[in-house]
Amino acid sequence: MRQNAEALQRERNAMALRDVSCVVLGGGGFLGVNLCRSLASCGARVRAFGRRRFFSSDLDGVEWCQGDFSDGAALAAAIGSCEIVFHLIHTNTPQSASLDAARDVQQNVVPSIALLEASRQRAVKRVVFVSSGGIIYGPAKDLPTPETAPTNPISAYGISKLAIEKYLALYEHLYGLSFRVLRVANAFGPYQLPIRNQGIIAALISGALRGQETEIWGDGSIVRDYVFADDIVDALHRAAVDQSDLRIFNIGSGQGRSVRDVIASIEAQLDKKLRIKAGPARPIDVPISVLATQRAKDTLGWQPATPFEQGLAATIDWWRRRE
Amino acid sequence: MRQNAEALQRERNAMALRDVSCVVLGGGGFLGVNLCRSLASCGARVRAFGRRRFFSSDLDGVEWCQGDFSDGAALAAAIGSCEIVFHLIHTNTPQSASLDAARDVQQNVVPSIALLEASRQRAVKRVVFVSSGGIIYGPAKDLPTPETAPTNPISAYGISKLAIEKYLALYEHLYGLSFRVLRVANAFGPYQLPIRNQGIIAALISGALRGQETEIWGDGSIVRDYVFADDIVDALHRAAVDQSDLRIFNIGSGQGRSVRDVIASIEAQLDKKLRIKAGPARPIDVPISVLATQRAKDTLGWQPATPFEQGLAATIDWWRRRE
Repeated sequence: MRQNAEALQRERNAMALRDVSCVVLGGGGFLGVNLCRSLASCGARVRAFGRRRFFSSDLDGVEWCQGDFSDGAALAAAIGSCEIVFHLIHTNTPQSASLDAARDVQQNVVPSIALLEASRQRAVKRVVFVSSGGIIYGPAKDLPTPETAPTNPISAYGISKLAIEKYLALYEHLYGLSFRVLRVANAFGPYQLPIRNQGIIAALISGALRGQETEIWGDGSIVRDYVFADDIVDALHRAAVDQSDLRIFNIGSGQGRSVRDVIASIEAQLDKKLRIKAGPARPIDVPISVLATQRAKDTLGWQPATPFEQGLAATIDWWRRRE
Repeated sequence: MRQNAEALQRERNAMALRDVSCVVLGGGGFLGVNLCRSLASCGARVRAFGRRRFFSSDLDGVEWCQGDFSDGAALAAAIGSCEIVFHLIHTNTPQSASLDAARDVQQNVVPSIALLEASRQRAVKRVVFVSSGGIIYGPAKDLPTPETAPTNPISAYGISKLAIEKYLALYEHLYGLSFRVLRVANAFGPYQLPIRNQGIIAALISGALRGQETEIWGDGSIVRDYVFADDIVDALHRAAVDQSDLRIFNIGSGQGRSVRDVIASIEAQLDKKLRIKAGPARPIDVPISVLATQRAKDTLGWQPATPFEQGLAATIDWWRRRE
């Protein structure tokens, strides 16, 4: 029965985006490719904007706009007459952002304001922003952490995300530009490449399949909330059409898993011992991050539909087909 | 008895800053001049940094460093080997910031990160930052508003202040750079000039003394928390030497006053009807802002010592001596 209701809701969302023109900023990246494919399959008119794309053959029917987020003219051209803007760009990783926080602001906050300015002057009906559920709260008192928790990030990456959230709210207040924010936990799934030390699951799987050693930070005790790409894409669809009074939604599995647990799950599925190198712990990592997702359930009708082991199997399958 | 305790505390603070080298960023402006004068009178070695100064004759014994906040080399030179950095610069007003939010970030957030970077690489022992108590919370549910309230500013000015607060916390987390934030309510007092539409009390007094009309935004019903410059300076001294575990303190009178009330008080003291022109209300103004200051009392031993009417009389006196 619930499955039926959910299928119906998905159908409804698909209908709502049929023939709607969408631009996905960061459409060449991990979540971007997943989102573009899903939007296109729903009959939306989809444009992807980004610096580069790795999976062009998987983006049939998606228009590609090459450009740098900091290039205001390229960005405005990409927005064009689109109605929905999905903002998935962050030029830094949590690690690199804190090494040069000023540059992180220049490359992410300033262009995000330019995006809002271009959006309000054009036909954009809504901006959907992917924020960071794993980083924006900092060390949280409440676990799982709700959207109302204090936001005290301990990385420059999280501060930029927070500032962009605030500018979204400002533009709605001043100009009526509609927005939604998804604070996404640790995403994993097909199309995630272990670039620049991001994506532990992708790094572990690809390392294992190639017989290479994978470096982790710390002793593996860090607990994260891993959420599968398909579920995030589902949430993005719902956020694009949501008519509630709420603006910010946690998107996570609601369950905590240590890096050691993740390694054990991958080893079990691959029936193979992984080669792990434990590097030093990083000061930008909180010990534990798990998101409360009741608000997304109550308001968007969303919940994480993919059990972790199932998402992991799909991800391993994707990597195997690449090898 | 309490007066004695307070006098003692002030004396203690004065002792703590004797011979300490301080730099006041924004030392040529309203609060900056008040702070520089007070620091110098406490025997601190004081340097003032800013784009311009209006009251050079009142800054005897204070070294002046002319420079733009965005000029990293000038800023680093001004910091030099100072131990305490008071950061009082914001290049925009709340009104101008929202007209070009990207520029506001460029001119204020980015140089503040540069300031933190320069500070951690030098001998700086503490950065004391003047944030905005009247703007950082946005429309507050709790009045008077405590430091723990959500921060949802409805102006770009407030978002920049919030981001800078977060970077201060980040630099303490990553590098151990000590900081304190004072969220100051609506400041008034001597040396405040009604430049760029800031400082309603200064605008009203100077307008009245010159027989000129003064423009206010809206119908005068907006309620603000007016805090006198001397009390703010006292709080800045205390924040510079505070050894508590807290970082952020509201500094206000704790009392709300409508613009109409303020006009009535000035009219009573001047025995003269003011000429007021009511302009349109601004979307960046919350209807009411009053700060809870219990934390500053409990932790810094600070409280607003100057009754509003007394501060107003001192400010009128200062303007009269200028005429």
